[in-house]
Amino acid sequence: MPQKVRIALDAMGGDHGPPVVVPGAELALSRHPDAEFVLFGDRTRIEPLLAAAPRLQAASRIVHTDVAVRMDDKPSQALRNGRWKSSMWLALDAVKKGEADVAVSAGNTGALMAMAKFNLRTMPGIERPAIAAVWPTLKGESIVLDLGASIGTDAEHLVNMAVMGSAMARVLFGLDRPSVGLLNIGVEEVKGLEPVREAGRMLREDPPPHVNYVGFVEGDDIGKGTADVVVTEGFAGNIALKTAEGTARQFADYLRMALSQSILTKLGYLLARPAFRMLRNKMDPNKSNGGVFLGLNGVVIKSHGGADPEGYAAAIDMGYNMVRHELLAKIGETIHQHTRTAAASRAVGGAAS
Amino acid sequence: MPQKVRIALDAMGGDHGPPVVVPGAELALSRHPDAEFVLFGDRTRIEPLLAAAPRLQAASRIVHTDVAVRMDDKPSQALRNGRWKSSMWLALDAVKKGEADVAVSAGNTGALMAMAKFNLRTMPGIERPAIAAVWPTLKGESIVLDLGASIGTDAEHLVNMAVMGSAMARVLFGLDRPSVGLLNIGVEEVKGLEPVREAGRMLREDPPPHVNYVGFVEGDDIGKGTADVVVTEGFAGNIALKTAEGTARQFADYLRMALSQSILTKLGYLLARPAFRMLRNKMDPNKSNGGVFLGLNGVVIKSHGGADPEGYAAAIDMGYNMVRHELLAKIGETIHQHTRTAAASRAVGGAAS
Repeated sequence: MPQKVRIALDAMGGDHGPPVVVPGAELALSRHPDAEFVLFGDRTRIEPLLAAAPRLQAASRIVHTDVAVRMDDKPSQALRNGRWKSSMWLALDAVKKGEADVAVSAGNTGALMAMAKFNLRTMPGIERPAIAAVWPTLKGESIVLDLGASIGTDAEHLVNMAVMGSAMARVLFGLDRPSVGLLNIGVEEVKGLEPVREAGRMLREDPPPHVNYVGFVEGDDIGKGTADVVVTEGFAGNIALKTAEGTARQFADYLRMALSQSILTKLGYLLARPAFRMLRNKMDPNKSNGGVFLGLNGVVIKSHGGADPEGYAAAIDMGYNMVRHELLAKIGETIHQHTRTAAASRAVGGAAS
Repeated sequence: MPQKVRIALDAMGGDHGPPVVVPGAELALSRHPDAEFVLFGDRTRIEPLLAAAPRLQAASRIVHTDVAVRMDDKPSQALRNGRWKSSMWLALDAVKKGEADVAVSAGNTGALMAMAKFNLRTMPGIERPAIAAVWPTLKGESIVLDLGASIGTDAEHLVNMAVMGSAMARVLFGLDRPSVGLLNIGVEEVKGLEPVREAGRMLREDPPPHVNYVGFVEGDDIGKGTADVVVTEGFAGNIALKTAEGTARQFADYLRMALSQSILTKLGYLLARPAFRMLRNKMDPNKSNGGVFLGLNGVVIKSHGGADPEGYAAAIDMGYNMVRHELLAKIGETIHQHTRTAAASRAVGGAAS
């Protein structure tokens, strides 16, 4: 583990760029004094902000580039126009070259994933990367993946995601064998679920180290916190995440409308204000900001594009924790051990038959 | 259109059976005096309940059977043990034979869909059935399908679902050309989305009658009410539905905890009670109970297994409306017209080239 945690920031990513990235980094530094930063982007926009934050300035350097990936660039456009030179690419490249331990970007997800795959490549034993995030639940927090890195799945990809998700839960929640559920639908005998069922069999019969497989879970189990890690295919995972966000917003809007309907309800609102503050706090998307790209040769964190400095700092915290608690080593060891055990048991099986 | 709307009830379906089905039917009858009922199930359990509801009794007859599909029967078990003789099968069979206009069951979804497919078959031009339901939104209500009838999809299935969903929206919302969105994820250039993109092309270039295609929508658009009809593949649709239910419950639990934290917040709760009643009302799953099986030669409504009489009555209402406003004819005509137009334009295209 390095003395310092070296964090590469795509300072131009997101809806706001430096005015969010710099104060976000300042906040994160106040929580992690052993962090240091490389900010990639337009020096003329970053420098004045840094000058106003002397502690951060002392822990940072700027690498100038004029090129920034736009929020609406398609992945192929981003690669065409931004490879080798955009702030996003250079932040990833710093990880690739060992000059940084983690890259954080609030840029567009598709472009960041395309560049990360292209530059960092997937880890040995992993075919496809995944995006994982922390989901607030009634019991605390769970990790859900894949939130849209790839569409469609096979059993092996699901098992690998179980390994990667459990490594992330070990890092974040300090558990040794996090419980892992496979997201499924209630109807049992429907064609097309074969990969999910096959992955269930594999996880039950030959569980990878540190994976406590607890079986299938359904959509409403995510919010209940039935499992520490919920594994699913990227299309359904993305739909689930967005639908939950939409439902939470809907509920909050209904509540606001209902509370403003009369003087009495308004008075009730005033009296119960601490309760609503607590509720807002619980559902605050800023708190759990930071999608982790798993399965690559490097740690990459995607912040929400519209995050404020507090939200952006949460994404940096996420990256910091992944490095400090050696996410990549944990994934690598588990995949390696599991592959070896599986090979050995196949060899024994082969000799016996 | 028949004089009366004849409704076949699987009286044994659901967690409770007749004690919910009979009072549910009584409620529905009070709203639709032109309905009549055939109740399939255990006569000794149904008769005493009917005797206590003379108005319903006058509009009902009982067809006795000892056999009931269990809530945990797999579809194949249900078919093996319940075909020809279970209350579920007989209710569907009444529709098949033209003795009823619609079948309602709170029995298990997988068994009901398997029996419905086996007995009623899909409509001409439709390969696969879908399950649609009404989803409360910030603007009012939308229809979402497929909620789990089949897994995986192709472009043609998605287009057919757009037609079926728009027919249901015409029936329920009284619109002539409901807006229809295809559920998709934000990342554009990901493999595996081809069917969704292809369906988008087909709907844009050659829109079926009564389908106002508005493009892709994301998970959070469902709750916003961006489109009257949201079309997606069954696995993602089921996950979305359950995740939304889970999130709503989570929000409600947080709210309850937050409001009970101090005397002041409790007092606020008391004052604002009408607001919370309104909120509960808005999010009440009973209100929008009733999944509609679309694409079959007959109307079949699936009530939630745990519904109370009010919820079961909502499912009957749904079935009643589908019959009264001629759902099947609307779907059939649109599919027929669209197929004819498509064939004609292919012929013209062929002659021109």
